[in-house]
Amino acid sequence: MARWQAGAQDQLEQAALALFLEQGFAETTVPQIAARAGLTTRTFFRHFTDKREVLFAGDEAVPTSVQQLMAQTPPEVRPVPLILTQLGPFAETVFGDRRDMLRRRHQIISTDQGLRERELQKMATLRASIVDGFVQRGTDKLTASLVADLAVVVLSTALAQWLDSVGPMPLSTAVAEVLAAFRRLASEVELQAGP
Amino acid sequence: MARWQAGAQDQLEQAALALFLEQGFAETTVPQIAARAGLTTRTFFRHFTDKREVLFAGDEAVPTSVQQLMAQTPPEVRPVPLILTQLGPFAETVFGDRRDMLRRRHQIISTDQGLRERELQKMATLRASIVDGFVQRGTDKLTASLVADLAVVVLSTALAQWLDSVGPMPLSTAVAEVLAAFRRLASEVELQAGP
Repeated sequence: MARWQAGAQDQLEQAALALFLEQGFAETTVPQIAARAGLTTRTFFRHFTDKREVLFAGDEAVPTSVQQLMAQTPPEVRPVPLILTQLGPFAETVFGDRRDMLRRRHQIISTDQGLRERELQKMATLRASIVDGFVQRGTDKLTASLVADLAVVVLSTALAQWLDSVGPMPLSTAVAEVLAAFRRLASEVELQAGP
Repeated sequence: MARWQAGAQDQLEQAALALFLEQGFAETTVPQIAARAGLTTRTFFRHFTDKREVLFAGDEAVPTSVQQLMAQTPPEVRPVPLILTQLGPFAETVFGDRRDMLRRRHQIISTDQGLRERELQKMATLRASIVDGFVQRGTDKLTASLVADLAVVVLSTALAQWLDSVGPMPLSTAVAEVLAAFRRLASEVELQAGP
């Protein structure tokens, strides 16, 4: 039963992405998605509340994973080392095996103002959960806010590099490249007289 | 003539902000704004293309100022020191004398999806002009992209701190505080073994 459900959810997702790309997000209806997947509208609504949710399914679990990961990291680990060590494995777990799906998803989202806004809200929620995680670890508010921004910048840049890349490339390689560039930038801060 | 025009533009801006806050952005019309300012609709359209432009007037000049500033900085100045030294004076020039207006503007923008999207596009344009400025200085694409993100994060954080602050506070003080926190974070990168 669980296996069949997972199959139906995947079929609905594939059908929805194909239709969104072929005829546009606004023009696609739930009955069309269900028909393309060879399933009923009722089955669609067992898996998703509406067509938009097909693009954002599973995302609501991400902030929770972030908070668990941060709570499990030993309290003596400082904010930046925490990000430097955890971001690669985290990104690989959440996004790593879905490059083709994420590329199509990215393309669909870019065509619709409501979807772009929803995507930005999602990143804002992720950012807020990182801030909360740091504050709970005793980090001051301003530092927590800046480290969360840095984490989101590194993650977004690595995802963009990875989605643009040709041929097989693990996401963790893209994260490592961006972190290496980030380290070089941090070393430039030292060249400048501090306050 | 020029002086009178500046006066009219300012009166229209004040009238528009007051009406947007009192009755909502969507509910406010250009004739209402003109009437509140004691001017004609025709005068409104000499200064703004539509009511949305009242909130974004002058913003189109910002990317050009950024590029000029970056082109004038000696070529040997590295990306991070450039941001550390120029961001405070730049922010003070562009935003420094408009805290009350920016607070009201921020409040109005947060109520409307189209305005939020436009505001994000504005930040994306600013970011793109910083990336271009660095690429023209010979910085590689990935580094240029990351430094531009850092600049936008520091600027946005400082603006938020400044708009939230009570009592007189120069924007340059907020920028200096955020940069000091950023320096502490950069020093933590060194604690971590590099690749």
